[in-house]
This record gives sequence, C-alpha cells and structure tokens, in this order.
Amino acid sequence: MPHKYLQPLLNERTSKIVLLVLDGLGGLPVEPGGPTELEAAHTPHLDRLAAEGSLGQTIPIRPGITPGSGPAHLALFGYDPLAYAVGRGALSALGVGMDFAPGDVAARGNFCTLDQNGLITDRRAGRIPTDEAAPLVEKLRAIRVPGVRVEVAPVKEYRFAVVMRGEGLSPHLADTDPQATGKPPLPVTATQPEAEETARLFNQWIAAARKALADQPRANGVTLRGFATDPGMPKYREVYGLRAACVAVYPMYKGVSRLVGMDVVPFEGESPADEFAAAARIWDEYDFIFIHIKKTDSMGEDGNFQGKVKVIESVDAALPALLERKPDVLMVTGDHATPARLRSHSWHPVPFLLWAPASHLPDAQTAFGERACARGGLGTFLAQEAMSLALAHALRLKKYGA
Amino acid sequence: MPHKYLQPLLNERTSKIVLLVLDGLGGLPVEPGGPTELEAAHTPHLDRLAAEGSLGQTIPIRPGITPGSGPAHLALFGYDPLAYAVGRGALSALGVGMDFAPGDVAARGNFCTLDQNGLITDRRAGRIPTDEAAPLVEKLRAIRVPGVRVEVAPVKEYRFAVVMRGEGLSPHLADTDPQATGKPPLPVTATQPEAEETARLFNQWIAAARKALADQPRANGVTLRGFATDPGMPKYREVYGLRAACVAVYPMYKGVSRLVGMDVVPFEGESPADEFAAAARIWDEYDFIFIHIKKTDSMGEDGNFQGKVKVIESVDAALPALLERKPDVLMVTGDHATPARLRSHSWHPVPFLLWAPASHLPDAQTAFGERACARGGLGTFLAQEAMSLALAHALRLKKYGA
Repeated sequence: MPHKYLQPLLNERTSKIVLLVLDGLGGLPVEPGGPTELEAAHTPHLDRLAAEGSLGQTIPIRPGITPGSGPAHLALFGYDPLAYAVGRGALSALGVGMDFAPGDVAARGNFCTLDQNGLITDRRAGRIPTDEAAPLVEKLRAIRVPGVRVEVAPVKEYRFAVVMRGEGLSPHLADTDPQATGKPPLPVTATQPEAEETARLFNQWIAAARKALADQPRANGVTLRGFATDPGMPKYREVYGLRAACVAVYPMYKGVSRLVGMDVVPFEGESPADEFAAAARIWDEYDFIFIHIKKTDSMGEDGNFQGKVKVIESVDAALPALLERKPDVLMVTGDHATPARLRSHSWHPVPFLLWAPASHLPDAQTAFGERACARGGLGTFLAQEAMSLALAHALRLKKYGA
Repeated sequence: MPHKYLQPLLNERTSKIVLLVLDGLGGLPVEPGGPTELEAAHTPHLDRLAAEGSLGQTIPIRPGITPGSGPAHLALFGYDPLAYAVGRGALSALGVGMDFAPGDVAARGNFCTLDQNGLITDRRAGRIPTDEAAPLVEKLRAIRVPGVRVEVAPVKEYRFAVVMRGEGLSPHLADTDPQATGKPPLPVTATQPEAEETARLFNQWIAAARKALADQPRANGVTLRGFATDPGMPKYREVYGLRAACVAVYPMYKGVSRLVGMDVVPFEGESPADEFAAAARIWDEYDFIFIHIKKTDSMGEDGNFQGKVKVIESVDAALPALLERKPDVLMVTGDHATPARLRSHSWHPVPFLLWAPASHLPDAQTAFGERACARGGLGTFLAQEAMSLALAHALRLKKYGA
C-alpha cells in the first residue's frame, strides 16, 4: 500500500484535488467494433480535458477481479482492498450516518414477510415504501438486549441498518437470509468460535423483533446480513494530509468515505449539477473532494446502453461549473466497469483521466474513451496508485531520497 | 525485487549489455501541445534504434514518487529502492573512491565560515575552490580520535567526505548543518540510543577540526550531514553474473555504482564522446557497462529546455562510436524526469528504449520520445524490472520451470 512511503513525503502545500467517480464507468461495445458507452457519449468537456491531460486505465483490485463497490472505492482512495475488508453492514451503517466505532458490529437488515409457519413468502416485505418502514424501525429501536446497546436506522424502503455496541463482540457471523422463499430465516451462527456470544445476542434481538412485528401484515420478519466491524483504517488527514469531503447521493458511498475520514457533505438534489454545486459550496474548506455519480452504474446494471450514455453526457454538460472552481488536479474515472452488455460489474480496466495544468505530461490522446485510455501516457496501473499520482500532480510530495 | 528469481536462472552465455542513462531524461512540453525536450531533439540514431527496437516507460520508484538520484539509479540497477536506503554520506565517500566497508560510517562535510562567536556566516565558506580546500583536507586528515580511524577526502570546492572506521559504530546521527546563517553548527546527536558513542566520537573529531582550522580566514569551521553506512547490497557479479563497469563523470554516480559492485572506469574528458570512448576501451573486460550522462539533468534543473535538447543531441551524435562495438543489448533511458518546465526532478514516467538485435519485439514506434514510449511495446513498468529485460534480451536467462 502506498501510504507507508507517501506519508513521510508530504509537504505543506495547499492545492485542490477532485476525484470524480462515475460509478461503473467502464463499458464494452454492444456490436463488435462498435463504441463503448463512454466512446459513444458526446463529451466535449471531458475530451478537452483528455487532450490537455493524461489518460490511462486502472485495474480496480487485481487483473481479472470484478469488484464490489466497497473494495473498488477503497482502492481508488489508495487502500489495498486485499488488505482491508469492509463488510456491507459497516458500509450501510456509516452510509445512514450512524455512529460506528471500532469494536461495534453492524449488519444490514431487511424486513421480510413470513407465513404462519415462519417461512419467508417475500424476502423484501413487498418492497414497502420508506415511510411505511419508518414506524417499524421505531418499534425495533425500542428493543432492549441485556449487556449491549442496539441501534437501528432506516435505509431505503424495506432496508434498515443495525449496530450492536458492547464488550467483546465479534463480526464473524453468517447471514440469516436463506436467499429463497419457502424457507425460514436462518438463525445467526458464528463462523468463528469467538463470535458465539455475539450470535446469541443477535438471535435474542431477532426474537424480540419478531414479537414486536407480529401484527404487521407484510413486514412481520427480519433478516440480517453483512455483519461487519470498523476495520480501523488510517484516515485521509493522517495518510495524505488532506481535509477530505464526500459528495454522494447513495448511503453506501458516504459510508466508505467516512471509513477513511472524509466528511460527508449534505446537499439538496440528486443530479450531477446538484453535486457539483455542493462541491463548489464547500470548496474553500477542503483539500480533496470526492464526487460520486451513481447512475452510470445503475444504467449498466439495467443493460441500458443508451441510458448510460445519457448519464455520462449529463455529467459532461454539468462539468463547467466544477471547472470554474479551478481544481489543481481533477481525476475522472470509474470505480470499476459496468458494461451494459454484461448487465453487471466487470473486471475490465477502467478509463482514467488525469488533468493537472501545472504538471501533467500530455500524451497523444485527444478524447476520453476506453481505446484512448489503453494507449494513454499513464499506462495501466492499480487503482490504489491513483492517490499517489494525484498528490504528485498537486505538488504535495517531496522528493524521495537524495 | 527480481534478484530472487533471476539468480537461479542465470546461464553461462557471454554477451554485452550497455545501460546508457541520460540523467533526468524525461521532460514536459513548455507550451500545451508542444514537444518535450526529447521529442524536440534531432536524434536520428536514437530514432533508428527506437524503430528497430522496443519502447516503453519506467516508473522510477512507485507511481507519483519523485526520486533523488540515489534511489533512482538503484532502481535502474534492479534493486528496490524502498528496500535499500542509501545515505548521501555513503554515496559521497564512494563517489570519491574512498574505501567504505560495512560497519563504517560516512558523512558529507562542508567547510563553513564562523564568526568570533562561533555562528555561521557562510555555510559554504565562500565556495572556496577545490585547490584551496586541498591543504585544509590535509589538516583534517592529521586529526586522530582514540579508538577509531577517520579518513577524509576532498570532493569539490568546499565539500569533503569523512569515513569513520571502528567497532560498534552507528549511522543514526542527525545533521549538524543548521541550514541557516547566524546560528552555530549543531552538535552531532544520536537519533537512536545505539549511536550515542558514535556521536561522541564525531563531536570529538569536529572539535579537533575547529582547532586545526582556527587560523583560516574563510574555512574555519565544518558541518557534517547525511551520516550513512554501507547497506551491504548484493553485488552485480553474484545477482546477475555480470562483470560490471561504470563510466561516469560525477562522484555520486560512481558511488552508487560501487555499492552494487561495479568497477569505476577512470578516463579523461567529460563529453559523451569521451565517455563512449572509455566504454569502448574497456569493452572486452566487462559484460555490463553503465554509462552516465549528467548534463541532461543539470539543464533541466536550470529550466533550460534548449540546453537539454542540445545535450540529448550531443549524445545522439556521439552514439555511432558506441554502436560500433556492437552491444548485444542497449538500453537508453533516464533515471527520472527533470522537465525544464518544472526545474526539478519529477515523478513522471521515463522514456525507455531497448535495442537488442538478436531478440527484440519491435513495436509500432519509430522515434524516441515520451508520447511514443507511452505507446511502446514494453508498456509501463517499474525501473527495477529493467535489468530483467536486459538479461533476457542478452539471452542470459534460462527457462523458469519445466
């Protein structure tokens, strides 16, 4: 991990770095020889930045590995995702702003529908809307388990997050969602002996939840998964000397940002323009701003090639407002590829654009796209090296050795 | 580090490898869209080699890291510079040809001017010329410190090198140069407890030096810095099976070459033609010749774009004399970038040319330059992998596994 050799090289310079992540940006042609989503998109602003700056492509985890969003973002933030495993429960809890300290155990929860035999008939409780779930979360909050404190927060629709606090807890617990209807929720079981007591406490909480929800027509059961603890990662301030902020719409990305010490910026709206406006507003208070665009990934997952093209174009159209603040370094990339053709995350290298007027080495590339990035001056590199490049181009690093 | 897997693969073949390093070769355009120094230079011979051979670009240390000359050369020599830290004192002593064995502690010394209160008025003693410093170094050589032997050698102008030999010495000592005038030289202090005794011995030597220089008008004091010991690196002969020679003008590069077991070739003159003539002269006695051209870096540091272009062109013009000796492998590269635009070393990838008529894979590139190297067939790779490529193209490695 680069942190070890970067930290002693940090200087006192102030400069602004922006990391703009279009989730799942990388794509594939639908027809042989055709363009990818990014190549098909009309992106005059990104193309200008590509011509002025340097292109390359990142390997999110290691060659051939398709990442989830958590590890993919950790890598872009400069943390080796093979060294730091962050459970989904931790990301969920952090994403909705719950306090989450080392030693606490978090999990993601789903409301589900159980029949009179206790078998699941709907794993998502009929996808009950957020406002219908809110009073049910209140019921869960009233549950007491001796010896620990349990906090619950609503996420979206049928989802909630749970955090258990106490002494000697362990996150080595198996999911209780059987991943099928017609089966009962599984009991919480320990995957390592040290977690036996924690399993017992969570089972006690689930039994109380069943009782509290018994009279509900749809959401009369719960499942828990992604048990996790805070991996205690070193924070942006200490490893990079950066005051860092996160501008994101979705909880998960706020969560992973908090884990590395970013402040999450509250703002209204969901569009790229809204996000850029939020970044512009907090500009003077931070050295590093991570901006997350979710919809590229969603469109890719839906297999919607044209929809993904449109999202990319909407980001490009909104970009001038961000450029007006004159970042010293701007990185535009994805956390991984989500080709519409595959309808899922993939392992392909991810287009990477680095624009840093003071110091960049221009290459022969003049448009932002997969083929251009494959021949870009930055070459192909691990996503976890991106922060090193950003700090260098922001002139924030001293020379190594004499 | 590649050594571990290279060593068992070495065969008995004889073939000649030349590593031609143009210090600080990598550059940047001054105008957006303009050429770099290397791209601007008229280099018909290098371009021919580029067309026949393969191009690529190296990362000296890790992405984003700007190297000093020591670690940058260690990397090109195939040693991970993060694993081997070589202090400046060691490089200085080796550079002027002092014997320097594991356990010895070396430092760089400066003559300085002290006022009657012992405060520094000139940190470089008026930059006294080399011939004026020589008799002063003789005075320092006469100093005796009980229990150890101290050797002193002149470097250039106001600089000298000191080596202390004895039992139980430690290099964990802080610099004595306060980096400002109007302050006294600092005493030598230990940065780790094991170095307390060594600090005492050096302070004793400094006190005697002050006495010996007391009547000097300008050079009446000394400062010491860059305390270092020989890191005991494995040598070229054992790790690569190569009899290696260094052709360089500047002491530092001779020093780092000696650390890895190269013989330093004495020769007259300073021009690329002189260096190539020296290489040609010792051709039959060595398997590997490292040739170091300093002036590309100096011009870059001075911000002299055209000057750097001219140095590159002078190397190109002299090249036929080297090619006449028919190296089996010729690498032409830099240890790092020193863009005239930045007037300093930088972290950018470094152009790399590999020419090996017996075995190279030509790529589509036909001229030696940054943009061409970014698209070259060797890709982007760590500088510490260059020796592996050289040995392979020299057909000096056996197959790995069956």
